[in-house]
Amino acid sequence: MSAAVIKYDHDMVRWQPDSRGRLEQAAMELFTERGFEQTTAAQIAERAGLTERTFFRHFADKREMLFDGSPRLQQLFVDAVAGAPADASPFEAVTAGLDAVSAFFVDLDHSRGRQAIIDSDASLQERELIKMSRLSSVIAGALRERGVTEPAASVLGQAAIGVFHVAFGQWVAPGNTRGYAELMHESLAELRAITA
Amino acid sequence: MSAAVIKYDHDMVRWQPDSRGRLEQAAMELFTERGFEQTTAAQIAERAGLTERTFFRHFADKREMLFDGSPRLQQLFVDAVAGAPADASPFEAVTAGLDAVSAFFVDLDHSRGRQAIIDSDASLQERELIKMSRLSSVIAGALRERGVTEPAASVLGQAAIGVFHVAFGQWVAPGNTRGYAELMHESLAELRAITA
Repeated sequence: MSAAVIKYDHDMVRWQPDSRGRLEQAAMELFTERGFEQTTAAQIAERAGLTERTFFRHFADKREMLFDGSPRLQQLFVDAVAGAPADASPFEAVTAGLDAVSAFFVDLDHSRGRQAIIDSDASLQERELIKMSRLSSVIAGALRERGVTEPAASVLGQAAIGVFHVAFGQWVAPGNTRGYAELMHESLAELRAITA
Repeated sequence: MSAAVIKYDHDMVRWQPDSRGRLEQAAMELFTERGFEQTTAAQIAERAGLTERTFFRHFADKREMLFDGSPRLQQLFVDAVAGAPADASPFEAVTAGLDAVSAFFVDLDHSRGRQAIIDSDASLQERELIKMSRLSSVIAGALRERGVTEPAASVLGQAAIGVFHVAFGQWVAPGNTRGYAELMHESLAELRAITA
Protein backbone atom coordinates (compact mmCIF):
# COMPACT_ATOMS: atom_id res chain seq x y z
CA MET A 1 0.00 0.00 0.00
CA SER A 2 1.47 3.41 -0.99
CA ALA A 3 1.75 6.37 1.37
CA ALA A 4 -0.76 8.30 -0.76
CA VAL A 5 -3.37 5.60 -0.32
CA ILE A 6 -2.77 5.45 3.43
CA LYS A 7 -3.24 9.25 3.63
CA TYR A 8 -6.47 8.99 1.62
CA ASP A 9 -7.79 6.36 4.03
CA HIS A 10 -6.97 8.58 7.00
CA ASP A 11 -8.85 11.44 5.38
CA MET A 12 -11.86 9.21 4.77
CA VAL A 13 -11.89 8.19 8.41
CA ARG A 14 -11.55 11.83 9.50
CA TRP A 15 -14.46 12.97 7.34
CA GLN A 16 -16.70 9.98 8.09
CA PRO A 17 -15.96 9.43 11.74
CA ASP A 18 -18.21 6.41 12.24
CA SER A 19 -18.98 4.95 8.81
CA ARG A 20 -18.62 1.46 10.15
CA GLY A 21 -21.05 2.03 12.99
CA ARG A 22 -23.51 3.76 10.67
CA LEU A 23 -23.36 0.85 8.23
CA GLU A 24 -23.98 -1.65 11.03
CA GLN A 25 -26.91 0.33 12.34
CA ALA A 26 -28.42 0.65 8.84
CA ALA A 27 -27.94 -3.08 8.19
CA MET A 28 -29.70 -4.10 11.41
CA GLU A 29 -32.63 -1.83 10.54
CA LEU A 30 -32.95 -3.14 6.98
CA PHE A 31 -32.47 -6.82 7.89
CA THR A 32 -35.27 -6.42 10.42
CA GLU A 33 -37.57 -4.41 8.14
CA ARG A 34 -37.10 -6.26 4.82
CA GLY A 35 -35.42 -9.51 5.75
CA PHE A 36 -31.76 -10.47 5.45
CA GLU A 37 -32.02 -12.10 2.02
CA GLN A 38 -33.89 -9.13 0.50
CA THR A 39 -31.39 -6.50 1.66
CA THR A 40 -28.44 -5.53 -0.57
CA ALA A 41 -25.12 -3.90 0.27
CA ALA A 42 -26.16 -0.92 -1.90
CA GLN A 43 -29.32 -0.42 0.17
CA ILE A 44 -27.37 -0.60 3.42
CA ALA A 45 -24.89 2.00 2.15
CA GLU A 46 -27.75 4.24 0.98
CA ARG A 47 -29.55 4.06 4.33
CA ALA A 48 -26.29 4.97 6.07
CA GLY A 49 -25.77 7.90 3.67
CA LEU A 50 -22.58 6.31 2.32
CA THR A 51 -21.43 4.81 -0.97
CA GLU A 52 -21.37 1.11 -1.82
CA ARG A 53 -17.61 1.49 -2.22
CA THR A 54 -17.37 2.58 1.42
CA PHE A 55 -19.45 -0.46 2.40
CA PHE A 56 -16.93 -2.78 0.79
CA ARG A 57 -14.00 -0.96 2.39
CA HIS A 58 -15.43 -2.04 5.75
CA PHE A 59 -17.10 -5.40 5.09
CA ALA A 60 -16.53 -8.35 2.75
CA ASP A 61 -20.30 -8.89 2.44
CA LYS A 62 -23.57 -8.27 4.30
CA ARG A 63 -23.36 -11.65 6.01
CA GLU A 64 -20.03 -10.82 7.64
CA MET A 65 -21.58 -7.73 9.29
CA LEU A 66 -23.43 -9.99 11.70
CA PHE A 67 -20.25 -11.78 12.75
CA ASP A 68 -18.09 -8.72 13.01
CA GLY A 69 -17.40 -9.27 16.72
CA SER A 70 -16.35 -12.93 16.41
CA PRO A 71 -12.56 -12.46 16.16
CA ARG A 72 -12.55 -10.11 19.16
CA LEU A 73 -14.73 -12.47 21.20
CA GLN A 74 -12.46 -15.38 20.31
CA GLN A 75 -9.35 -13.39 21.29
CA LEU A 76 -10.88 -12.33 24.61
CA PHE A 77 -11.78 -15.94 25.42
CA VAL A 78 -8.38 -17.35 24.49
CA ASP A 79 -6.46 -14.59 26.29
CA ALA A 80 -8.42 -15.23 29.48
CA VAL A 81 -7.76 -18.99 29.29
CA ALA A 82 -4.05 -18.35 28.68
CA GLY A 83 -3.90 -15.68 31.39
CA ALA A 84 -5.53 -17.73 34.15
CA PRO A 85 -3.22 -18.39 37.13
CA ALA A 86 -0.74 -21.22 36.58
CA ASP A 87 -2.38 -23.26 39.34
CA ALA A 88 -5.92 -22.79 37.96
CA SER A 89 -7.60 -26.04 36.96
CA PRO A 90 -8.67 -26.48 33.30
CA PHE A 91 -12.27 -25.90 34.41
CA GLU A 92 -11.27 -22.68 36.18
CA ALA A 93 -9.34 -21.50 33.11
CA VAL A 94 -12.39 -22.07 30.91
CA THR A 95 -14.59 -20.31 33.45
CA ALA A 96 -12.24 -17.31 33.21
CA GLY A 97 -12.75 -17.38 29.42
CA LEU A 98 -16.53 -17.49 29.77
CA ASP A 99 -16.38 -14.64 32.28
CA ALA A 100 -14.25 -12.55 29.95
CA VAL A 101 -16.70 -12.81 27.06
CA SER A 102 -19.63 -11.92 29.32
CA ALA A 103 -18.50 -8.32 28.78
CA PHE A 104 -19.76 -8.76 25.21
CA PHE A 105 -23.33 -9.46 26.23
CA VAL A 106 -24.79 -6.39 27.82
CA ASP A 107 -26.92 -4.82 25.06
CA LEU A 108 -29.88 -7.19 25.18
CA ASP A 109 -31.99 -5.35 22.58
CA HIS A 110 -29.14 -5.49 20.07
CA SER A 111 -28.44 -9.18 20.72
CA ARG A 112 -32.14 -10.07 20.47
CA GLY A 113 -32.42 -8.21 17.17
CA ARG A 114 -29.31 -9.90 15.80
CA GLN A 115 -30.51 -13.33 16.92
CA ALA A 116 -33.91 -12.83 15.28
CA ILE A 117 -32.12 -12.09 11.99
CA ILE A 118 -29.89 -15.16 12.32
CA ASP A 119 -32.87 -17.37 13.20
CA SER A 120 -34.61 -16.18 10.01
CA ASP A 121 -31.94 -17.45 7.61
CA ALA A 122 -30.48 -20.96 7.30
CA SER A 123 -27.16 -19.74 5.89
CA LEU A 124 -26.69 -17.43 8.89
CA GLN A 125 -27.42 -20.27 11.29
CA GLU A 126 -24.79 -22.34 9.50
CA ARG A 127 -22.30 -19.49 9.70
CA GLU A 128 -22.96 -19.18 13.43
CA LEU A 129 -22.42 -22.90 13.97
CA ILE A 130 -19.11 -22.68 12.08
CA LYS A 131 -18.00 -19.79 14.31
CA MET A 132 -18.95 -21.76 17.43
CA SER A 133 -17.12 -24.81 16.17
CA ARG A 134 -13.97 -22.76 15.53
CA LEU A 135 -14.23 -21.15 18.95
CA SER A 136 -14.41 -24.60 20.51
CA SER A 137 -11.23 -25.59 18.62
CA VAL A 138 -9.26 -22.52 19.71
CA ILE A 139 -10.34 -22.99 23.34
CA ALA A 140 -9.06 -26.57 23.15
CA GLY A 141 -5.80 -25.19 21.69
CA ALA A 142 -5.47 -22.68 24.55
CA LEU A 143 -6.04 -25.51 27.04
CA ARG A 144 -3.36 -27.67 25.39
CA GLU A 145 -1.00 -24.69 25.72
CA ARG A 146 -1.67 -24.93 29.46
CA GLY A 147 -0.65 -28.58 29.40
CA VAL A 148 -4.15 -30.12 29.25
CA THR A 149 -3.96 -33.36 27.27
CA GLU A 150 -6.36 -34.72 24.66
CA PRO A 151 -9.16 -35.70 24.61
CA ALA A 152 -9.76 -33.64 27.79
CA ALA A 153 -8.91 -30.31 26.10
CA SER A 154 -11.32 -30.87 23.20
CA VAL A 155 -14.10 -32.26 25.39
CA LEU A 156 -13.84 -29.25 27.71
CA GLY A 157 -13.72 -26.87 24.72
CA GLN A 158 -16.94 -28.42 23.41
CA ALA A 159 -18.62 -28.33 26.81
CA ALA A 160 -17.63 -24.67 27.26
CA ILE A 161 -19.23 -23.78 23.93
CA GLY A 162 -22.30 -25.73 25.00
CA VAL A 163 -22.59 -23.66 28.19
CA PHE A 164 -21.96 -20.47 26.22
CA HIS A 165 -24.65 -21.36 23.68
CA VAL A 166 -27.29 -22.43 26.21
CA ALA A 167 -26.77 -19.33 28.39
CA PHE A 168 -26.92 -17.07 25.35
CA GLY A 169 -30.19 -18.69 24.25
CA GLN A 170 -31.69 -18.12 27.70
CA TRP A 171 -30.45 -14.55 27.78
CA VAL A 172 -32.10 -13.52 24.48
CA ALA A 173 -35.27 -15.56 25.14
CA PRO A 174 -38.49 -13.49 25.32
CA GLY A 175 -39.22 -12.28 28.83
CA ASN A 176 -35.78 -12.93 30.27
CA THR A 177 -34.56 -10.25 32.64
CA ARG A 178 -31.48 -11.97 34.08
CA GLY A 179 -27.94 -11.04 33.02
CA TYR A 180 -25.81 -13.20 30.76
CA ALA A 181 -23.07 -13.74 33.37
CA GLU A 182 -25.56 -15.05 35.93
CA LEU A 183 -27.16 -17.44 33.42
CA MET A 184 -23.75 -18.64 32.27
CA HIS A 185 -22.63 -19.42 35.82
CA GLU A 186 -25.86 -21.28 36.43
CA SER A 187 -25.27 -23.43 33.33
CA LEU A 188 -21.66 -24.06 34.35
CA ALA A 189 -22.87 -25.19 37.79
CA GLU A 190 -25.44 -27.46 36.10
CA LEU A 191 -22.72 -29.00 33.95
CA ARG A 192 -20.72 -29.74 37.07
CA ALA A 193 -23.68 -31.13 39.00
CA ILE A 194 -25.01 -33.30 36.20
CA THR A 195 -21.68 -34.95 35.38
CA ALA A 196 -20.70 -35.42 39.05
CA MET B 1 -50.90 -43.01 -4.28
CA SER B 2 -52.87 -45.44 -6.47
CA ALA B 3 -52.58 -49.21 -6.18
CA ALA B 4 -51.11 -49.34 -9.69
CA VAL B 5 -48.26 -47.03 -8.71
CA ILE B 6 -47.57 -49.01 -5.55
CA LYS B 7 -47.40 -52.19 -7.61
CA TYR B 8 -45.00 -50.51 -10.05
CA ASP B 9 -42.74 -49.45 -7.18
CA HIS B 10 -42.72 -52.97 -5.83
CA ASP B 11 -41.71 -54.27 -9.23
CA MET B 12 -38.90 -51.74 -9.44
CA VAL B 13 -37.61 -52.85 -6.06
CA ARG B 14 -37.88 -56.50 -7.08
CA TRP B 15 -35.89 -55.96 -10.25
CA GLN B 16 -33.26 -53.67 -8.70
CA PRO B 17 -32.79 -55.27 -5.34
CA ASP B 18 -30.18 -52.87 -3.98
CA SER B 19 -30.36 -49.70 -6.07
CA ARG B 20 -29.95 -47.56 -2.97
CA GLY B 21 -26.81 -49.36 -1.84
CA ARG B 22 -25.38 -49.29 -5.36
CA LEU B 23 -26.00 -45.55 -5.63
CA GLU B 24 -24.31 -44.94 -2.27
CA GLN B 25 -21.32 -47.04 -3.25
CA ALA B 26 -21.01 -45.23 -6.60
CA ALA B 27 -21.32 -41.83 -4.92
CA MET B 28 -18.56 -42.56 -2.42
CA GLU B 29 -16.27 -43.69 -5.25
CA LEU B 30 -16.96 -40.63 -7.40
CA PHE B 31 -16.79 -38.11 -4.54
CA THR B 32 -13.37 -39.55 -3.65
CA GLU B 33 -12.10 -39.76 -7.24
CA ARG B 34 -13.42 -36.46 -8.67
CA GLY B 35 -14.41 -34.42 -5.66
CA PHE B 36 -17.87 -33.81 -4.23
CA GLU B 37 -18.54 -30.56 -6.09
CA GLN B 38 -17.52 -32.01 -9.46
CA THR B 39 -19.78 -35.07 -9.22
CA THR B 40 -23.36 -34.98 -10.57
CA ALA B 41 -26.38 -37.10 -9.76
CA ALA B 42 -26.36 -38.31 -13.39
CA GLN B 43 -22.76 -39.54 -13.04
CA ILE B 44 -23.58 -41.35 -9.81
CA ALA B 45 -26.56 -43.08 -11.46
CA GLU B 46 -24.44 -44.04 -14.48
CA ARG B 47 -21.67 -45.51 -12.33
CA ALA B 48 -24.30 -47.53 -10.46
CA GLY B 49 -25.82 -48.73 -13.75
CA LEU B 50 -29.10 -46.98 -12.96
CA THR B 51 -31.07 -44.05 -14.34
CA GLU B 52 -31.05 -40.51 -12.98
CA ARG B 53 -34.76 -40.97 -12.33
CA THR B 54 -33.96 -43.88 -10.02
CA PHE B 55 -31.40 -41.69 -8.23
CA PHE B 56 -34.07 -39.13 -7.42
CA ARG B 57 -36.51 -41.81 -6.29
CA HIS B 58 -34.00 -42.60 -3.52
CA PHE B 59 -32.32 -39.26 -2.70
CA ALA B 60 -33.31 -35.59 -2.73
CA ASP B 61 -29.79 -34.61 -3.84
CA LYS B 62 -26.17 -35.81 -3.75
CA ARG B 63 -25.53 -33.93 -0.49
CA GLU B 64 -28.23 -35.83 1.35
CA MET B 65 -26.55 -39.15 0.46
CA LEU B 66 -23.83 -38.40 2.99
CA PHE B 67 -26.34 -37.79 5.78
CA ASP B 68 -28.59 -40.68 4.98
CA GLY B 69 -28.02 -42.29 8.38
CA SER B 70 -28.76 -39.18 10.48
CA PRO B 71 -32.46 -39.79 11.21
CA ARG B 72 -31.75 -43.38 12.25
CA LEU B 73 -28.83 -42.34 14.45
CA GLN B 74 -30.98 -39.65 16.08
CA GLN B 75 -33.80 -42.13 16.72
CA LEU B 76 -31.41 -44.68 18.23
CA PHE B 77 -29.97 -42.05 20.55
CA VAL B 78 -33.33 -40.68 21.69
CA ASP B 79 -34.86 -44.15 22.15
CA ALA B 80 -31.93 -45.15 24.36
CA VAL B 81 -32.25 -42.01 26.49
CA ALA B 82 -36.01 -42.56 26.82
CA GLY B 83 -35.56 -46.27 27.51
CA ALA B 84 -32.95 -45.92 30.27
CA PRO B 85 -34.15 -47.23 33.66
CA ALA B 86 -36.38 -44.81 35.55
CA ASP B 87 -33.78 -44.47 38.30
CA ALA B 88 -30.91 -43.77 35.88
CA SER B 89 -29.31 -40.35 36.34
CA PRO B 90 -29.41 -37.89 33.42
CA PHE B 91 -25.72 -38.63 32.82
CA GLU B 92 -26.42 -42.38 32.76
CA ALA B 93 -29.32 -41.86 30.34
CA VAL B 94 -27.08 -39.89 27.98
CA THR B 95 -24.38 -42.53 28.30
CA ALA B 96 -26.98 -45.12 27.21
CA GLY B 97 -27.66 -42.94 24.15
CA LEU B 98 -23.97 -42.67 23.30
CA ASP B 99 -23.61 -46.43 23.74
CA ALA B 100 -26.55 -47.10 21.45
CA VAL B 101 -25.11 -45.07 18.57
CA SER B 102 -21.72 -46.76 18.93
CA ALA B 103 -23.31 -49.56 16.90
CA PHE B 104 -23.17 -47.13 13.95
CA PHE B 105 -19.43 -46.75 14.02
CA VAL B 106 -17.84 -50.05 13.13
CA ASP B 107 -16.84 -49.66 9.47
CA LEU B 108 -13.77 -47.45 9.94
CA ASP B 109 -12.79 -47.36 6.24
CA HIS B 110 -16.25 -46.17 5.26
CA SER B 111 -16.35 -43.51 8.00
CA ARG B 112 -12.86 -42.28 7.14
CA GLY B 113 -13.79 -42.00 3.46
CA ARG B 114 -17.00 -40.16 4.30
CA GLN B 115 -15.19 -37.79 6.66
CA ALA B 116 -12.54 -36.98 4.05
CA ILE B 117 -15.33 -35.99 1.63
CA ILE B 118 -17.03 -33.81 4.27
CA ASP B 119 -13.73 -32.17 5.23
CA SER B 120 -13.21 -31.26 1.56
CA ASP B 121 -16.35 -29.15 1.23
CA ALA B 122 -17.48 -26.20 3.36
CA SER B 123 -21.18 -26.74 2.64
CA LEU B 124 -20.91 -30.35 3.85
CA GLN B 125 -19.19 -29.25 7.06
CA GLU B 126 -22.04 -26.79 7.63
CA ARG B 127 -24.60 -29.51 7.00
CA GLU B 128 -22.82 -31.74 9.51
CA LEU B 129 -22.81 -29.00 12.15
CA ILE B 130 -26.54 -28.46 11.59
CA LYS B 131 -27.19 -32.17 12.11
CA MET B 132 -25.10 -32.16 15.30
CA SER B 133 -26.94 -29.09 16.57
CA ARG B 134 -30.31 -30.76 15.94
CA LEU B 135 -29.16 -33.94 17.62
CA SER B 136 -28.17 -31.91 20.67
CA SER B 137 -31.67 -30.36 20.75
CA VAL B 138 -33.48 -33.69 20.52
CA ILE B 139 -31.29 -35.19 23.25
CA ALA B 140 -32.21 -32.22 25.47
CA GLY B 141 -35.87 -32.87 24.61
CA ALA B 142 -35.55 -36.56 25.55
CA LEU B 143 -33.95 -35.53 28.86
CA ARG B 144 -36.79 -33.08 29.59
CA GLU B 145 -39.21 -35.96 28.96
CA ARG B 146 -37.38 -37.76 31.79
CA GLY B 147 -38.00 -34.77 34.06
CA VAL B 148 -34.60 -33.10 33.70
CA THR B 149 -35.09 -29.32 33.99
CA GLU B 150 -33.50 -26.53 31.96
CA PRO B 151 -30.77 -25.43 31.59
CA ALA B 152 -29.40 -28.82 32.74
CA ALA B 153 -31.07 -30.73 29.87
CA SER B 154 -29.64 -28.46 27.16
CA VAL B 155 -26.20 -28.25 28.76
CA LEU B 156 -26.00 -32.04 28.97
CA GLY B 157 -27.28 -32.39 25.40
CA GLN B 158 -24.50 -30.08 24.22
CA ALA B 159 -21.86 -31.85 26.30
CA ALA B 160 -23.02 -35.23 24.94
CA ILE B 161 -22.63 -34.00 21.37
CA GLY B 162 -19.20 -32.67 22.30
CA VAL B 163 -18.13 -36.10 23.54
CA PHE B 164 -19.65 -37.73 20.48
CA HIS B 165 -17.82 -35.34 18.15
CA VAL B 166 -14.43 -35.59 19.89
CA ALA B 167 -14.54 -39.39 20.03
CA PHE B 168 -15.57 -39.61 16.39
CA GLY B 169 -12.66 -37.36 15.40
CA GLN B 170 -10.23 -39.56 17.30
CA TRP B 171 -11.72 -42.69 15.80
CA VAL B 172 -11.29 -41.61 12.15
CA ALA B 173 -7.89 -39.97 12.78
CA PRO B 174 -5.00 -41.48 10.80
CA GLY B 175 -3.32 -44.33 12.63
CA ASN B 176 -6.06 -44.89 15.18
CA THR B 177 -6.73 -48.55 15.92
CA ARG B 178 -9.04 -48.19 18.96
CA GLY B 179 -12.79 -48.72 18.74
CA TYR B 180 -15.31 -45.90 18.81
CA ALA B 181 -17.02 -47.12 21.99
CA GLU B 182 -13.74 -47.21 23.92
CA LEU B 183 -12.79 -43.69 22.78
CA MET B 184 -16.25 -42.39 23.60
CA HIS B 185 -16.14 -43.80 27.14
CA GLU B 186 -12.70 -42.27 27.63
CA SER B 187 -14.02 -38.85 26.59
CA LEU B 188 -17.05 -39.22 28.85
CA ALA B 189 -14.73 -40.06 31.75
CA GLU B 190 -12.60 -37.00 30.91
CA LEU B 191 -15.68 -34.79 30.91
CA ARG B 192 -16.54 -36.08 34.38
CA ALA B 193 -13.01 -35.70 35.71
CA ILE B 194 -12.41 -32.23 34.32
CA THR B 195 -15.65 -30.74 35.62
CA ALA B 196 -15.38 -32.43 39.04
